[in-house]
Amino acid sequence: MSERAWPELIAQIRSRQPVIHCITNYVTANDVANIILASGASPVMADGVREAEDISDISHGLVLNLGTMRENAIESMLRAGHRAAKLGHPVVLDPVGAGASAFRKETALRILKEVPCSLIRGNASEIRALVNEHVMTRGVDTDSREALTADNRQETAAMARQLSKSTGAVVVMTGATDLVAWGSHICFIKNGHPMMSRITGAGCMLDGVLASALAAADMDFKPGSGAAGKAQSSCTPLGEEHFLHAAYTVAAVGICGELAFEKTEKSGGGTGSFRMYFIDAMSKLSDEEIRDRIQIEWDTQMSERGKSSEF
Amino acid sequence: MSERAWPELIAQIRSRQPVIHCITNYVTANDVANIILASGASPVMADGVREAEDISDISHGLVLNLGTMRENAIESMLRAGHRAAKLGHPVVLDPVGAGASAFRKETALRILKEVPCSLIRGNASEIRALVNEHVMTRGVDTDSREALTADNRQETAAMARQLSKSTGAVVVMTGATDLVAWGSHICFIKNGHPMMSRITGAGCMLDGVLASALAAADMDFKPGSGAAGKAQSSCTPLGEEHFLHAAYTVAAVGICGELAFEKTEKSGGGTGSFRMYFIDAMSKLSDEEIRDRIQIEWDTQMSERGKSSEF
Amino acid sequence: MSERAWPELIAQIRSRQPVIHCITNYVTANDVANIILASGASPVMADGVREAEDISDISHGLVLNLGTMRENAIESMLRAGHRAAKLGHPVVLDPVGAGASAFRKETALRILKEVPCSLIRGNASEIRALVNEHVMTRGVDTDSREALTADNRQETAAMARQLSKSTGAVVVMTGATDLVAWGSHICFIKNGHPMMSRITGAGCMLDGVLASALAAADMDFKPGSGAAGKAQSSCTPLGEEHFLHAAYTVAAVGICGELAFEKTEKSGGGTGSFRMYFIDAMSKLSDEEIRDRIQIEWDTQMSERGKSSEF
Repeated sequence: MSERAWPELIAQIRSRQPVIHCITNYVTANDVANIILASGASPVMADGVREAEDISDISHGLVLNLGTMRENAIESMLRAGHRAAKLGHPVVLDPVGAGASAFRKETALRILKEVPCSLIRGNASEIRALVNEHVMTRGVDTDSREALTADNRQETAAMARQLSKSTGAVVVMTGATDLVAWGSHICFIKNGHPMMSRITGAGCMLDGVLASALAAADMDFKPGSGAAGKAQSSCTPLGEEHFLHAAYTVAAVGICGELAFEKTEKSGGGTGSFRMYFIDAMSKLSDEEIRDRIQIEWDTQMSERGKSSEF
Repeated sequence: MSERAWPELIAQIRSRQPVIHCITNYVTANDVANIILASGASPVMADGVREAEDISDISHGLVLNLGTMRENAIESMLRAGHRAAKLGHPVVLDPVGAGASAFRKETALRILKEVPCSLIRGNASEIRALVNEHVMTRGVDTDSREALTADNRQETAAMARQLSKSTGAVVVMTGATDLVAWGSHICFIKNGHPMMSRITGAGCMLDGVLASALAAADMDFKPGSGAAGKAQSSCTPLGEEHFLHAAYTVAAVGICGELAFEKTEKSGGGTGSFRMYFIDAMSKLSDEEIRDRIQIEWDTQMSERGKSSEF
Repeated sequence: MSERAWPELIAQIRSRQPVIHCITNYVTANDVANIILASGASPVMADGVREAEDISDISHGLVLNLGTMRENAIESMLRAGHRAAKLGHPVVLDPVGAGASAFRKETALRILKEVPCSLIRGNASEIRALVNEHVMTRGVDTDSREALTADNRQETAAMARQLSKSTGAVVVMTGATDLVAWGSHICFIKNGHPMMSRITGAGCMLDGVLASALAAADMDFKPGSGAAGKAQSSCTPLGEEHFLHAAYTVAAVGICGELAFEKTEKSGGGTGSFRMYFIDAMSKLSDEEIRDRIQIEWDTQMSERGKSSEF
């Protein structure tokens, strides 16, 4: 894939200004709203059950984030998810802490079963919690589950690939190196900075930008052509677009982390400054800057399109 | 109105330190609390049903903000609203997204019907959503509703005036130019900066400062002399004071936006920096600075007091 | 106590990285999570009833903060509190606004009755609200209650000591001068800056760092040796450790306020900048810096260990 193949994704978000419906946690909701605005999209943070569908109707994308999960938010998430899927909006699921409590894991799996998600973003333990459940319910023995916990690239990639294949969603697994999987496609993104894990919400903010990017891109598609296809197949052209856009967005947000670290260092600041500079960076980011700094590596098992990449 | 006619409103907030009870959304609650503190007042963020009246009892003003509206918050808002009105406290209503869902619109209208609000703040579409409902319930035909959607100053002003007259509240409609209406009084405020719409919560923060300003000013009035009068008539002297104080406060917050933009430009920052400088500006703002920078224009239909203005 | 007697507490948090379960208010949750991360610990913000125990199981300490208290959070707090106590985790209770509503006071007292708390942190009026209740239920007459409202050091200290003795918890009372009490041990900490009271959440952030510090220190103790002892007696060695660690942590957070004020002054900023520099300071703080700047004064009634202090 030549450089030109990359979408002008930030420019697209800024010109199309998609409205992103977020049902998210109260800890990072402010940062998520601010980074969505910084990316050029427009957030609507709304988790009331009685308005879930109404808000989806005026939106172009949906974020479902399970941090600070409360019982009554599940109904809102399902209602908004169903409506968004029906409207062909991209749905981003963040199973925050899916491995930390049975309640979160059950909720994440229930949403995955009932709502056709376009993208799932989590860290390795969150993705593993979802995959192991699938494994269990399919009767795969415990040995294979153990293998998935090994901390190496091949097995981690296999885990993400498995979740993507079973759900049809693009899977973004964030960590020291980020991984994006869709069906048999895999890429690794090396942008970002360790300081991103020293503030709360870097992952939640990524969710918001991912939804903004997919929603802006999907505005090309006619209503109705998206979700139905996504729900039925993991090999739609839309899915491949989402995979590429997700990889590019993960790099973009990682680059914001790099730029924020540079400013933090220069100013002698700490993690408070880093958080501010992170949002600053997104509000000033250009596609040119992304193309200059993107560090992406395609997996050997990737699709034909990927194989011809020049990266 | 000469310069001297303006209240020393910021000084007044800082010396009287009113306590502001906020039932607000979790997205911007931190910013609202911080800007209230920066203005010199003291926030109490409390939305539990069982303590709504108790908290109103120890407060001097109330903010009801419908962002991230949940079902069980309505009861808290009504209880706190009734108690605040009984105590003669100014009540500021922000019908966030009143046009975005039936639930929010119904809730905003219910609060307006049951609680005598001193001030309503929203953007054009939020105000329009409330006005159209009033129009409907009063049998005015659909043609007039269409007219209200035209994007021009006269019609926008008419809409705000209509909401003010039907509710007795001062109406603050924010946008590129802000508008403050009370009965037949109208003024336009040109302070502010477009970057205010690139962070979340600029409107919610304005709500908090408006409540702080009105509460500080009302501390001159004896308990009991306020709310009763407000509920019965849209022509109380208190209402006119609220109109002037609201206009001045809208300008003050707009000036914080201007100052924040100047600092952001100078530092090479983005929207994250802007948000910080915005709160910085409020914490250091003086009435002298406001009088130097205020840009206000009185409508031709304004009251006698307004007509004699030197602005 | 020589300088060497102070724990390398910040280093300890950073090396042990305890997980802190926070059931806290939505106003300052982001700041609390960020300061916990800045201190070196790892926050889990989770208030769902169905996951309270699960989250406690993966944590090392618990914060129960009553700001923006809602009815359904009480059950979560009690469940998490019981589990944390059973596991020997330190439990930090912040009775935010205990004097502001009957609901909050009742809830704080209920938690104190049912959950063995390691530490209670509040301002003078919050501590007084809890003490007066204890006085009442024990039949002490109203005169003594009046005496407690006098604003002087001896009586304030007596109030904190009384709460500590009746609960077995370390009591941290924050104000212009901070006070830490445990049984008959008392110390006063003069670090900090008045600007800390001009931002929201300085107290909530202190809660988070206190829990991080106690949890990191307790990781020396075997599971099961902690809570049981704490629940039965106010004279455990663990309690004395907690007292010393709490005093040191209060100083550490106060020093962050001092450092943040210096940076704010230098940059010409206001309260927005101060808030950022406050978190910056925690993320860069060293034990050496704390020992250099700590200002602590031991009460004359303090324990033998305290009496030999060189401070």
